[in-house]
Amino acid sequence: MTGSATDTLRIELGERSYPIVIGAGLLQQPGQVAAHVAARDVLVVTNATVGPLYLEPLTAGLHGKRVRSVTLPDGEQFKTMAVLERIFDALVEGRLNRDACIVALGGGVVGDIAGFAAACYQRGIDFVQVPTTLLAQVDSSVGGKTGVNHPGGKNMIGAFHQPRAVLTDLATLRTLPPRELRAGLAEVIKYGLVDDLGFLEWIEQHVGELLALDVPALAHAVRRSCEIKARIVASDEREQGVRALLNLGHTFGHAIENAAGYGAWLHGEAVGIGMLLAADLSRRLGWLDAAAVERVRALLVRTGLPVEAPRIGAARALDLMGMDKKVLQGRIRLVLLRSLGAGVVTGDYAIAALQATLRDHFEAAA
Amino acid sequence: MTGSATDTLRIELGERSYPIVIGAGLLQQPGQVAAHVAARDVLVVTNATVGPLYLEPLTAGLHGKRVRSVTLPDGEQFKTMAVLERIFDALVEGRLNRDACIVALGGGVVGDIAGFAAACYQRGIDFVQVPTTLLAQVDSSVGGKTGVNHPGGKNMIGAFHQPRAVLTDLATLRTLPPRELRAGLAEVIKYGLVDDLGFLEWIEQHVGELLALDVPALAHAVRRSCEIKARIVASDEREQGVRALLNLGHTFGHAIENAAGYGAWLHGEAVGIGMLLAADLSRRLGWLDAAAVERVRALLVRTGLPVEAPRIGAARALDLMGMDKKVLQGRIRLVLLRSLGAGVVTGDYAIAALQATLRDHFEAAA
Repeated sequence: MTGSATDTLRIELGERSYPIVIGAGLLQQPGQVAAHVAARDVLVVTNATVGPLYLEPLTAGLHGKRVRSVTLPDGEQFKTMAVLERIFDALVEGRLNRDACIVALGGGVVGDIAGFAAACYQRGIDFVQVPTTLLAQVDSSVGGKTGVNHPGGKNMIGAFHQPRAVLTDLATLRTLPPRELRAGLAEVIKYGLVDDLGFLEWIEQHVGELLALDVPALAHAVRRSCEIKARIVASDEREQGVRALLNLGHTFGHAIENAAGYGAWLHGEAVGIGMLLAADLSRRLGWLDAAAVERVRALLVRTGLPVEAPRIGAARALDLMGMDKKVLQGRIRLVLLRSLGAGVVTGDYAIAALQATLRDHFEAAA
Repeated sequence: MTGSATDTLRIELGERSYPIVIGAGLLQQPGQVAAHVAARDVLVVTNATVGPLYLEPLTAGLHGKRVRSVTLPDGEQFKTMAVLERIFDALVEGRLNRDACIVALGGGVVGDIAGFAAACYQRGIDFVQVPTTLLAQVDSSVGGKTGVNHPGGKNMIGAFHQPRAVLTDLATLRTLPPRELRAGLAEVIKYGLVDDLGFLEWIEQHVGELLALDVPALAHAVRRSCEIKARIVASDEREQGVRALLNLGHTFGHAIENAAGYGAWLHGEAVGIGMLLAADLSRRLGWLDAAAVERVRALLVRTGLPVEAPRIGAARALDLMGMDKKVLQGRIRLVLLRSLGAGVVTGDYAIAALQATLRDHFEAAA
């Protein structure tokens, strides 16, 4: 799975433009990492699962620099202010200055918290992402969102801070638990559903290869996902409008994650069910037919993702959705589907239809 | 001291431009506050000293909105991550959303921490400053710097986040302890020293009126200080170059504050001595004559500011200066004076001259 050609996608954001380098075995190729870390002082932020696997080759690739590292506990439940402070402590203890760089080695949690630390330390230093989960490779590495959770809600505290570069080593997916690979594929499916019917069809045709870690298939899925996200983000960097399309499934998904407690559901798993609920609500509004909803469900099933929501009750689900950031003046705006491949952000739907969707998915069968 | 005309200075920052409204008695004038807070949901952040004095009139001025408040302990030693979290807790508990607004009612500490909370909450919400100390009125209200301290250094964690408006009620200075008024005047003197000899001369002529809280004198001092800071900031919003001029006295000052422990010295007091050290070093470099240094010292004395540095030793001072954010690749860049009214940011000075300045001011006399 090593030795394949690398592919570079450039995210165009004016003076904050950066490359996403995609390949299998990047961490083993001398110079690939160092070429994208200009700073002399580096703090690698990783976690207890990923660190033992990849910290050593990464550090070897930074030969000649002053490299420190901080290893966080692994899990969404550690994406907290308290853990963030451990990064600040390491930065201060190492006397790192404004020209230092943080390298985030790990999944979305490591990327979010390390990126937020980089956004805030001395009011902003560089950071480079080395995402080691499919979710992070297709989602967290584009868009500049960083942050931590609050007991009252996910990602309530954060900043927009763009990385200097993203180094996506597809070989790291070989050590990723299959459940996390599937959760990452939920986000890949999201890009197809919300923006590109052709890509959705490609996923339907290649889901087996993706699950088998076929490198060309993975490289295409990562690249196309990043392209779609980058195009949407570039037109709406501060999330005022169309960027909200990327939250397909997330409002429902946050409710599921919140209700179960962080960590019980993987983010992608919750988003997967959330997309199914969005499709279901879109059907009730007359935008999708039953066959389209079934097609979404079938793809989730083939990907090995759960399609049954936890029976937390419709009222609780609605309450948990109300805390979501996507609320504007009390009105819950949702991402729905006008058709497969065409998402829409709207508050213009019948509340009764939303309630029916919540009842069907969150209430125990009578 | 009420009823005087208000003066508005507009800070031009493109789409983030905002007004600074300066007047005596603004908080008592119905509509002045509400006119600048568009949000329906407001969290007022204040402290235990200022809250009892001004929270009630401020809240009255926000009649018709949903107003919550959080009262922090008063003091620089509480500008911490832990206290910041209390603001996040209040925001989450009140279920405030992205369209909410934080109003910072207090001095620089309240403004910095509340502004940082606004920068981070849901990745950025509006905030409005109501500065009640002279220091905050002439310094914190322009520039967009927000943040908290770390045990290892001041303002190590923060963000750039511009307020929507600044409402400067000069009447609040009547309840300000005289020592804090004098510390605020240190920053006013800084603007003259670093950028405007004419303003420095005006201060020399009007220091008595400023200490006596004469409204027209205060209004001019605040306006001119904000103008100078705004012009420098507008040309260098992210602090890459000339903005560092505003740090005249701050590198030395940070060492003093750090050595004594936060809170023992007022920021302005430490900066005042820092400016004297900068003048002293500038003299050793042949840029100022002894009379100019004496003129700086005399103005500080007339303002009632300390001119004797704590005897912490030159080595310790240098070490504490080394942790400062203004270090680039290990070289300490300092703000010095080419002449009175003309600051310069430079790393191009004899180390021996710096050491002589530190010895003269930080070592006990033999």
